[in-house]
This record gives sequence, structure tokens and C-alpha cells, in this order.
Amino acid sequence: MVELNISTTAKIRMADITRLLEDAVIQNGWEDGILTVFTPHTTAAVTINENADLDVQRDMTAFMNKLVPDEAYFRHSEGNSDAHIKSSLFGCSETVIVENSRLVLGTWQGVYFCEFDGPRHRKVWLKFIGK
Amino acid sequence: MVELNISTTAKIRMADITRLLEDAVIQNGWEDGILTVFTPHTTAAVTINENADLDVQRDMTAFMNKLVPDEAYFRHSEGNSDAHIKSSLFGCSETVIVENSRLVLGTWQGVYFCEFDGPRHRKVWLKFIGK
Amino acid sequence: MVELNISTTAKIRMADITRLLEDAVIQNGWEDGILTVFTPHTTAAVTINENADLDVQRDMTAFMNKLVPDEAYFRHSEGNSDAHIKSSLFGCSETVIVENSRLVLGTWQGVYFCEFDGPRHRKVWLKFIGK
Repeated sequence: MVELNISTTAKIRMADITRLLEDAVIQNGWEDGILTVFTPHTTAAVTINENADLDVQRDMTAFMNKLVPDEAYFRHSEGNSDAHIKSSLFGCSETVIVENSRLVLGTWQGVYFCEFDGPRHRKVWLKFIGK
Repeated sequence: MVELNISTTAKIRMADITRLLEDAVIQNGWEDGILTVFTPHTTAAVTINENADLDVQRDMTAFMNKLVPDEAYFRHSEGNSDAHIKSSLFGCSETVIVENSRLVLGTWQGVYFCEFDGPRHRKVWLKFIGK
Repeated sequence: MVELNISTTAKIRMADITRLLEDAVIQNGWEDGILTVFTPHTTAAVTINENADLDVQRDMTAFMNKLVPDEAYFRHSEGNSDAHIKSSLFGCSETVIVENSRLVLGTWQGVYFCEFDGPRHRKVWLKFIGK
């Protein structure tokens, strides 16, 4: 397992980690298989979405804040139940195909670490399984 | 990696691809392991849900349109931010168990390609990892 | 594939199955790889979230009921379309890393079976793929 460290800079933010994953694939000699990209936090997520227009990320985070607000009836004392819910809606991991020592993604796809309760220092774990 | 081609026929639609996956398992001689079903698009998804009553798919797509409408504050110039959000909510991949050269699914489960910004020609990538 | 049996006790409930998974890892001698945790039901889900404060689970299930209510326009005759939608939003499987014969989870992470149309007798399937 390889551990990546990420520092987020806002309460809610999508950080493109595609380049970090591509570097890890090369550095670890992963050639052909699947890569599990897993974050060990319960107020964050990993998702795959558009890598071209930054407005997509802004629209997505703005909408997620509207979809899951800080409800008056929440009882969790830390006051971040909305972030826990956003985490389960997007999910804490993604599986990416690796072939010819490269991540195989669509033309417009990037892999994103989603911070829902930052800013914080966060981790992402990578586990490669060869074919 | 095996590539499937799918043509969707509406703006938003769930297409049952279970049979295509079953055929791929047989044709490629996959016997025992896990199959990653991954779509390389950012306005589509892959999900697993009921395969019996078509009304379930209709209720699901109608609700997703209501849950994630085309918000006035979206800035992405292509005007399909709602589809990007739906994609991350359902997720762009699923993992399915394969044993005895067959997909192992629940009685009422089918695997669906979810079009959120069609109609378009789309792809689904299959990567099998043996046990 | 290993099958777990779970009995849920309410219409909507998150049941912590982390201990069951840890026991399965030991009993089956799984050492290093990834574990697919898959539920074969279409009105349930598997998610990973906080294992410490039970209020998080209560806030999450209360919010999911508010987010996906029983809409008047739903046509599925069984009347549980809301549960099918919740299932696809959280997803029917998770992938967990296994190393040194142990599940590798974050400090505050637990794996949950999510019942959205209970109470029922349910199954969870485990498929381990070694490195």
C-alpha cells in the first residue's frame, strides 16, 4: 500500500490527484491491473469527474452544499454530519484500470479527492492488484 | 481490457447491460475473480439495481432529475453540470464478482449504464482480475 | 466467495459489519489484497463511515429519508422506489484493502450494511483477491 498526503485549503473543495496517481504508477512499477484509490477519512471522498473546465468542480461543490445543508435536527456533536453524508454519497474509493504502466481514464476524466470538512491534512491510500 | 459500445436514446436513461457483461465473461474465458465495470464518461454512470419492474428505472431517473435540476447558478458553459453531479452521485464504476464463469448477482440485480446527458454513443470498459 | 447473513431490525438502519469482516479475514486466511464487500439486494447498500458516535448514523439515515421521500409520482407497484434510489446513491459494494491479515481502515472508519426497506433477512458477499 502506498500512502499519499494531501493538504486541503477550504471547507469544501475538489483536488485533482490524477498526476499523483500517475506518478505512483510509474514509481512503483505497476503495469497491468486495477488500482484502488481509497481515502481513510469519513468526511471526505474520492470521485472521478471532468478535468477540463474548473467551473464543473465549482458547480459540483456548490450543489453538494445546497443538497446536504447543516440540518437543524442533526445531533452529532461535532457539527459536521453534512460532511459525513456527502462522503457516503460520493464514496470513499474509486477503482481505476492500469494498463501499459498507465492509468486508463477517459479523455475528460480526472480523479479527485473531495474535501467536505476542511481545511485539513488528509491521506489517500493506493493498493494495486496485478492481473 | 474489453471495450463495449452503447448508444443511448434519450437525455436520461438507464440501459441494462447485464447480458453484455455475461457474454463478455464467456467470450473472454473469465472464470473466478472480480470484474471492474467502468465508464470513461463524466456525464454518465454505472449502477446496479432492480431488473424486474421497468417502473423502478423510470422512478429512479425521474427522481434524479428532480434531485439535481439545472440550477440557475451553474457556471459550466456546456450547461450540463447536473449530469456531472448525477455521475458522481451514482459513480462511474461497479465491481462484480465472477465465479464458475458467471457473473454472481442477486436475483433481482441487473447492471445498468446510466445516461445523464444523451443521446450519445458511449463506452464501457471491462477489466477482469482473476483470483 | 463467502456469504454473511444479517437480520435488520428497522425500515432504515445502518448496521456495523466491520467485526464480521475482520473475522472473515482471519478465518479464511486472507493476507494481502483487496476485499470486495457486495450486497445482492436492490433496496440496501454498503458504505463506509464513522464508527464512533452513533449520532452520525442517526443523522445520516434521517437525512436520507428526507432527501429521498416516497414521491407521489412513483409508479413501482411495490411502493419502495425510495429504497431503490437510496441503494444506488450509496452503492451496493465497497472495496477494502487487506494487509498483514487485517482490514486496513481509517481510525474512525467502519463498514456498514445499510438497510433501506427492512426489517428483512439480508446477505453480504465477500470476495478476496490476493496481491
